This record gives sequence, C-alpha cells and structure tokens, in this order.
Amino acid sequence: MEKPGLIVAPLTPFTADLGVDEPALRRQIDYVVTDCGATMVVAAGVETQEYTYLGLEQRKALIRATIEAVDGRVPVMVGISHPSFKTAVALAHEAERLGAAAVQLLAPLRPFAGAPTQSDLLAYFVAVARETGLPITLYLNPGPGADVSIADTIALAKLPRVQLIKESSRDLARVSRLIVEIDRAGHARYFTTMQMLLATLELGGSGATMPPPGSEIARHVIDAFVAKDYERAASLQLQFALFPSKWMHRGLAPVMKAAMNLIGVPAGDPYPPYAPLSRDETAALAAYLRTTVLAHRFPATAAA
Amino acid sequence: MEKPGLIVAPLTPFTADLGVDEPALRRQIDYVVTDCGATMVVAAGVETQEYTYLGLEQRKALIRATIEAVDGRVPVMVGISHPSFKTAVALAHEAERLGAAAVQLLAPLRPFAGAPTQSDLLAYFVAVARETGLPITLYLNPGPGADVSIADTIALAKLPRVQLIKESSRDLARVSRLIVEIDRAGHARYFTTMQMLLATLELGGSGATMPPPGSEIARHVIDAFVAKDYERAASLQLQFALFPSKWMHRGLAPVMKAAMNLIGVPAGDPYPPYAPLSRDETAALAAYLRTTVLAHRFPATAAA
Amino acid sequence: MEKPGLIVAPLTPFTADLGVDEPALRRQIDYVVTDCGATMVVAAGVETQEYTYLGLEQRKALIRATIEAVDGRVPVMVGISHPSFKTAVALAHEAERLGAAAVQLLAPLRPFAGAPTQSDLLAYFVAVARETGLPITLYLNPGPGADVSIADTIALAKLPRVQLIKESSRDLARVSRLIVEIDRAGHARYFTTMQMLLATLELGGSGATMPPPGSEIARHVIDAFVAKDYERAASLQLQFALFPSKWMHRGLAPVMKAAMNLIGVPAGDPYPPYAPLSRDETAALAAYLRTTVLAHRFPATAAA
Amino acid sequence: MEKPGLIVAPLTPFTADLGVDEPALRRQIDYVVTDCGATMVVAAGVETQEYTYLGLEQRKALIRATIEAVDGRVPVMVGISHPSFKTAVALAHEAERLGAAAVQLLAPLRPFAGAPTQSDLLAYFVAVARETGLPITLYLNPGPGADVSIADTIALAKLPRVQLIKESSRDLARVSRLIVEIDRAGHARYFTTMQMLLATLELGGSGATMPPPGSEIARHVIDAFVAKDYERAASLQLQFALFPSKWMHRGLAPVMKAAMNLIGVPAGDPYPPYAPLSRDETAALAAYLRTTVLAHRFPATAAA
Repeated sequence: MEKPGLIVAPLTPFTADLGVDEPALRRQIDYVVTDCGATMVVAAGVETQEYTYLGLEQRKALIRATIEAVDGRVPVMVGISHPSFKTAVALAHEAERLGAAAVQLLAPLRPFAGAPTQSDLLAYFVAVARETGLPITLYLNPGPGADVSIADTIALAKLPRVQLIKESSRDLARVSRLIVEIDRAGHARYFTTMQMLLATLELGGSGATMPPPGSEIARHVIDAFVAKDYERAASLQLQFALFPSKWMHRGLAPVMKAAMNLIGVPAGDPYPPYAPLSRDETAALAAYLRTTVLAHRFPATAAA
Repeated sequence: MEKPGLIVAPLTPFTADLGVDEPALRRQIDYVVTDCGATMVVAAGVETQEYTYLGLEQRKALIRATIEAVDGRVPVMVGISHPSFKTAVALAHEAERLGAAAVQLLAPLRPFAGAPTQSDLLAYFVAVARETGLPITLYLNPGPGADVSIADTIALAKLPRVQLIKESSRDLARVSRLIVEIDRAGHARYFTTMQMLLATLELGGSGATMPPPGSEIARHVIDAFVAKDYERAASLQLQFALFPSKWMHRGLAPVMKAAMNLIGVPAGDPYPPYAPLSRDETAALAAYLRTTVLAHRFPATAAA
Repeated sequence: MEKPGLIVAPLTPFTADLGVDEPALRRQIDYVVTDCGATMVVAAGVETQEYTYLGLEQRKALIRATIEAVDGRVPVMVGISHPSFKTAVALAHEAERLGAAAVQLLAPLRPFAGAPTQSDLLAYFVAVARETGLPITLYLNPGPGADVSIADTIALAKLPRVQLIKESSRDLARVSRLIVEIDRAGHARYFTTMQMLLATLELGGSGATMPPPGSEIARHVIDAFVAKDYERAASLQLQFALFPSKWMHRGLAPVMKAAMNLIGVPAGDPYPPYAPLSRDETAALAAYLRTTVLAHRFPATAAA
Repeated sequence: MEKPGLIVAPLTPFTADLGVDEPALRRQIDYVVTDCGATMVVAAGVETQEYTYLGLEQRKALIRATIEAVDGRVPVMVGISHPSFKTAVALAHEAERLGAAAVQLLAPLRPFAGAPTQSDLLAYFVAVARETGLPITLYLNPGPGADVSIADTIALAKLPRVQLIKESSRDLARVSRLIVEIDRAGHARYFTTMQMLLATLELGGSGATMPPPGSEIARHVIDAFVAKDYERAASLQLQFALFPSKWMHRGLAPVMKAAMNLIGVPAGDPYPPYAPLSRDETAALAAYLRTTVLAHRFPATAAA
C-alpha cells in the first residue's frame, strides 16, 4: 500500500478590492505544507477555493502564486475545470509550463439541460487527455458538476490518463463500491472527503482532499492509521462529525475561513455576497475547535 | 394589457475552430427579428446559447456582434450572469455602453455547496443593481443556477431594478402563482418558456423567451391569442407538445440547431463534446417539423 | 370531442373516534354531484381522501358508503391501490360487485428501494387487469407512488384495460407530450389536476380530477370552455393560482377540508396528527375564497 | 460501551399462493439466531421483509410466527408502522401481548403531498408513545417514509420513549453527526446498515440492522471489532462493497433472497410482480459470495 494521500486545497484569501491576497496565501500554504503534512496541494481546483469568481487571467495568477508558494516542497495539482474543453486544455498547458504534477477536471454539467451521457463525458475527458501529458484527476461534484453514475465513473476511471479521482459524495455505499472497482482494481487512485477519510483508508482507498484546517485533523487521522493505532484514528475521525457539519448551512468556504481565522492563519472573508459567520456562530465554532487537535493553536489564556 | 413579449435567444453558430461564426449569426438574427417577430433579442443570456464555453472577451464579442446584427430593429437584452457580481457589473457596464435595453442575470448557485439563502440572493442582485441603470431580468434556471423558492422569487421580484423574470420551470402550479403574485401584482413582467406560452398568456403573464425556430411557432401562438382566436392558439401551442420534448435527451441546443439547419437558417453543430443529432434523429425531427407551421420552410419537393 | 370530464374525489369526514362520518359524507356527495357537476366520483382513490389510514374493512365500508350516496346519479370509480396486486384484485372484485364503473390503481413504489422497472410496472398492472373486467385508471403520483417516466407511462397506457390516466404532475412539458402520445393517440383518456385544467382541455386532454370545492370552480372553467368563452375560462382558471397553493405547506387535505367547512359543507378536520388550518390561515383562506366563484356560498352579512 | 447490536430482519418466504411459508421462516430464524448471532430479531418491520403486501391479520400472523420461532432466544422488535397512529397503537398492543421487547415505527410520509413538519412528526410519535410501554425504534427510510432532517431527527430522538434509531441513510456526514448528537449524547442508540457497520462502530454508534445473510458477514465484522482486530474488521467490511450493491437494481429483497437460496437457507422468491434474479445474475452472485465469509456454506465440490 502506498502511504495515504492528503491533498489539500488552500482557501483563497481576498483583499479588500477582491483580488487575491498573495501574502496571506503564502502564509496559509506554509501551514498546509508544514503543519498539515499535505502530500499534494491543489491550485484553483475546487469550488471551496472560490476560484469560480475569477477571470481567466486572475485564475492563472492564483495558480502561479500557489505553485510559487509551494516552491517544490510537494507536488501541485492544478484545477483546469471549464465548460469548454479548449479552455481546460489551455489551462493544462499552463499547468505543464509551471511544473504541475497533475490537473484536476470537473465532470461538467451539460450546460443546456439534461444529464450528460457516458459518451458525452468520455468525449470531454478524451478531448482534454489528448492534449496533455499530465495525469488527470476526475473530479466528481454534483451541483457545480454532473451527477455521474457508478457505471459512468468506472468508465471514466478506465481512461489511461485518468489516474486519480476526487469524489465529493458522502454516500458510503457508492464510495465502498468505487474503491473496490476503481482503486483496488488498479484503474485510478480514489480520494474522498474529510467525513469519509478513515472509512476510505480502511477500505483501501487512497486518501482524501480537503481545505485547511480540516487537513490538520486529517493529518493526525492518517498518522494514527499508518501507525495502526486504529482507536486513536477513530477518535480523531470523530472530530469531523460536528465540524464542519454544524455550520454547513453557511457553506464550506465561510466555515473553513472562519476556522482558519480562529487558529491564527488568516484566510479572510468569503467572496461577496456570501457572509462570514456571525459573532455567535464564530464563538460556537471556536468552542468546538478547542475540543479538537486544533486546540493547541488557540492562545492559552483566551476564554472559549 | 401590453402586447405579449416574445424574447428570442439566438443560437450561437461556431466556426470549425470553435469561434463564433458571425455571418451565420447575422443571418439567424434576421430570421429572428423578421420572421419570428421577436420583441426583444437576448445576447449571450441563456445556456442554450452556449455562451458558457466562451472566455470573457469572446463573450463580449458575441454580445457586440448580436447588438450589431440586431441593428436597433428591436431592443437587446444582454446576459451578464457570472458567479462574481463584479464581473456581472462589468458586463452590465459593457451592455450600457453598447446601448442594450436590459440585462439578464441568473440567480446563482452557491459555489461551495448548499442552497443560497434569500439574503444571499438579495445581496447578489442588490450588488449588481447598485451599479447599473438598466432594468434587470431575474433569470431562474435550476441546475446552472439556484433553485429559488416561491417566497424568494417574490422577494427578488420586489427589488425595483428587477423588472422582468425569465422562468425556466414547467411547473404550472408554481408559474400560475408567480404570475399572480409578481406580474399581475405589478412587481415585474413574467416570461416563461415554449411549453408554457399559451398558459402564461391566458393567466396574465407577459410572454416567453426561447431560441429559434421555436420562436416562429410562438409568433403564431401570440398572433392568434392577440386576435382572440383561442382555438387556433391552442392548436398551435400543441406543436410544442412533441417539439422539442421527443429529442430532449440530446439537450436543447443540439435539437434547436438541428431544427434551424433543417429550415435553412444554418446554426451549425453543438459545441463539442456534445454531438449533433444522428441522421435518424434528424429525419424524425424533419418529419415532425413538416407537420407544424414551420413546414413552409422546407423545400416543396423534398420527401419527408 | 367528448365532453370534458370532471372526476371528483370527496374528502373523508371523520367522527370524533376517527370512523367515517357517513352523514357528512352523503351531504358532501350531494354537493359534489349536484353543485359541482361531477361526471364521475372517486371512492377511496387518492391520498387526499385520507383512505390510507383505514383498515381494509373500513376502506370497503367507505367505498360502499360512497357508492350508496352517489346512488347511480353518476358513475363511481373505486380506488384499489395496494402494494399487493392480490389485494388490489380483491378490491376490484368488490368494486364490480358494487356496480362501480372503473377502478383506479396507483403505479406503486418498489417497497424495498430502487425505482420499479417498466417490466415491474407492466407485470403489476397486467396481474390486476387479468382479474377484472372493469376499466383501469392508471394513477400517477410520485411520493406515495412511483415516479413513472414518459416512456413507461406510454407503455402502461397501451395496455388495453388501462383506459384512463390520473396524472398528478404539474409539469406542463410532460403533460403536453403525454396528452398527445396517449389521449390524442387513442390509448387512454388523460386527466390532470386543478392547476392544469384549462391547459389540459386546450391541448386535447380529457379533464381533471380533484377534491371539492375546487371542483365547483372547475365546473365553471369547463362550462366556459365548452361554451367557447375562453376568456372567461382563463379568468376562472386563474382562481386556482393562489388556491390551494398559498396554503399547501399544510397539505392538500387540510386546505380543502378548511375550504369545505367555510362554504357550509362540513368535511371535518384532517386525520391526526395533521392539524387543521389555524384561525389566521382560515381567515385568509375565507377572504380569498370570497373573491372566487365560491363567494355565493358565504353568508351575505359575514365579514371577510 | 455496550456490545454492538446486530438487529436482523428475516426475509419473508412465501408459499405458492403467497401466504407466509412458516416452516421456511422457522428454518431461517434458526440461521439468524444461531449462525448470525443476532442480538435482536425484527418482525415485520422493514420493507425488505415484504410485509407491506400483507393484510393486517396476515401481518399479525407473521409477527406471531416470528416471535414463536425466535422462542425467547433473543429479544424481538415488532414493526408497527402504519399511516394511522391508531393502527400503529393496535400493533403495539399486540406486540406487548406477544412479549416483544420493542416496537419499530417508520417516520411516515404525509399522505397528501408535502413533507411532514417537525410538529407533525412529533405528534405522530407522541400519539403512539402515549399508548405503549415498549421502547420505540424511530425508523428512518426516505421513500416509503419521510425524509427527516437532522434537526427533526434529533428532536424525535429526545422523546423519552424513542430509545433506538434505525437509519437507512448511507450518508456518512449525516450519520457521523447523528451518532454524536444522539447516541453519544445519550438520547437513543443509533443503528445503521450493512455498508455503514464498521464506520458506525468506530464512531460510537450502536450497530446495524439488516437482513440475512448480510448478517452473517456482519457478525464477523462485529466479532473482529470487539476483539480489536481492526484490520480484519476492515477486510470483512469490504465484503459489503460489492454485495449487495452490484445487484441492487433488482432491489434488496430479491438479492438477499437469492443469496439465502444459494447458501442453503431457502427464502423463496420475491413477492410478485418483482422477479427473482436471472440465472446469470444468480451465478455471478454465487461466484462473489464464494469469495466472502459465506463461502463455507457452499457445497465443496460445486464449481463457482
């Protein structure tokens, strides 16, 4: 078994005029690489990174800033998702140029109603795969992207260039089956989410991708799992039962940004119009995080 | 009662290298304005126009080309939908500069999971409305956009700048209620779709928006309705029972492009990877369209 | 064209100990037959009739009481829906014995997860059809029953014994297509709901089924339509835009029972634990109904 | 920590004329109690037991036959789910009379459209709880029952009489949170499904409920977990990745009945119109089960 993967997607801090706050990003990436032990960093790959607000040039700048900040310490995977395969290809070329290790590509919605067929999905991934030598991560996230069936996911995973899968589903029946039929079958490495991390590892999946600071909790889950201290792994996994779930009506980006601000690695506010957590929500979040492995990041004297 | 509105969204013809085929677009807009009697033309506003594949500059070029081709014959409404309110504002400013009559703005998904709240939606529309003097069309299209409840739709419709609504739902219970609570209540004019046209007019809604050549059928529905020839209106509305429904598993853009190609106003193929209709599907579509008011556009001697 | 059908499903009034209040039922059926001009009455056929609370013997008693109260004035259709085709057959035999004109059978959910396939659905309807000489109404109501696709609905409609369809969907795109492919194609008569009534008639559907007192409004819609007074038909149809929609968070049975109580044809309260409308909700409903064709049933001097 | 619970719901074998095959049921219950180590047996409680086809007297007979066959070896939980709280109460009284240890009650759909509110759900459970001294299992199964939110589930779990929860969801984010907020918070013991078993135990949930022969696999998962042999537990849990998932398009009852027939504990065919697995499907299922801990039940000489 390869060592479990912890793929981390830094949050995007914005300046007052809604540009990317590069110093804050660098500070965060140091945290992600050093404190969270990320095995790979994602640049502008998942929606929680709020990259969809950015124009193409701003998006490339965010990718570049991410790669520069990581500075070769770990591999970087570049998000190239776009409704147009041509733009995805252009972003893949930019990723190659910048020395990325892989690209991540969302299984897209059909823009004009109805679900994409398996042949639509294959055609789209083949069109991109044809133009890049980088490994492709198939990114599954119904909502922003298509709701891809088990059969269609397996078909996509069998494309030679598709070497990783980022699965957003929390459906353990689906995930169990796909770990067996994709990861253990040798088609692609299968990564899930915070809430699924320990179950994924136990079933033979490859790890998870997530934003910080969930990634610091995850690091401990993985360390315990690798050390075969399964009871500690389970007890750490349990920290994801309430976090971020209890605050998710606000959305994942606002909750994670609030958590980062609390632990002293500022990530700023969500891109408008989405509001940051209220004072009461923030206080409740702080009280909860103090019961987790993140507690050590809080000042010793502050009240919960 | 104002005359019913027929808002038409031209399909985007692409060249071999996937640029916009401007001559074909101009030809189509002549058809839309002259033959369909559009009361307003939409530039890059709905997903069926395949604008989501375009970069921002290409998108502006499509908007410009549309406005130039319409050439003042009817008002133009410019699509400004973007996850970032700032980009939407920039597009609104471009629309103003080009002399557009209105802008159309999709109620956006929350990019990072969960449904937007009413206050999220209001904040987004207010942020745009503050920056433009143009009337805003609230565009509702769950999937690419958010699934907005009846209560939230009414709240948005009460914003002074929101003067039109483009509703994609075919749920007549929802639409009936919103026509009464929004259009007849004086908050905004309410436009629906092909399949809903006659029902919308009868209940006091303002019309429908759609791509060609559905718009040519719609023109006749509206003419019959205005002439109080309700039996003819119903018999024409019935032409939308099978078209485009029977081919919708292929998606609306491919079906409408196939129909345009059949009636001699070429719109090209769908943007890849989506496939055009097969030969058999095209033949079946042609046979059907020959039973509609579009029959006169087919060469007299061709076999069905 | 046959005269449009108005199939009415009386609400079930309960006594204090939750038996069927037969005198109140008889009073209501007189209203349904005489005042609403029902062309057919449904006995224990739709969930709004709250028959699912009843044991089999109570359900048969309700069927019998309904048929006796109708007393041959119009045909009666008996609900025979049950997960077991054998119980459905037993109810069909009871319906025959009691002189029913037809039976109504819900397309059932698969009890143990997953959607029924077309062959599951066909097998179920064939199993019942084989055992009864009565015409069968295919009843489509996703939730209590299966969500049947367009293709599967057409396949079921082609069974010779399936002669009517009761469609609960408010999706006018679906309904338009099925009216053409089923009713106008001669496979079965297609009936919809209050909100869909006028659109259904105009497209060539056969009518609608609903509970009272919606049926009294519907009677006027149908009369106007038959008289070719389409403007009046539309203006009456509009009365269904807010009623029952504005109160539907309480459920259809509570709203309709409240309306019946208001117009002086008592239908009692919903079966527990569902609550009747609150005093404020009832007052708002009364105020609305006084603006409809039901106004004449309110005492002249009462305040709205 | 209490020993994990394995609540087993025997499949219902039917005779040729669709009565309950009591000898086959007894044989199966011996398997469930002796070989699977069930800590509790469910009588007519979940839809996979196909009890919804039965009339009330047949249902009571099935309950009685189950309790007699268990014969006091383990406690029995009796399904009392019914749209009417009065029938649920009557079944609870029967359960008491027969010496049941608990009753299981589905959170019901609102029969007449729309989701039940929290107060609807509380009123229903309170109405039943008032009339029985037995512990109540809150049974959550969207589809046949309501889709109950996290907040509403917690509210129901706080009712004193609600002492267990049977959760059908495979959403590990939901389940993680509810284990913490319900089971670890002391409100009720939380049981999930086959696919969720190990994850549930690790997070501090109480076990799972399922039909045989999944229960024999589950027994080994639980034994390994209790012995703190977590690697073996995970490797056994993995046997649920493909079984029953790969055959679930046929539904859970047909798959499980086929599996039982294969391992020599006949459970007959599904109740019509649902078809048993085809010969090919059965062969594939047999080949798979021979790779699991169920292999020892297959005759040594038979080919896979």
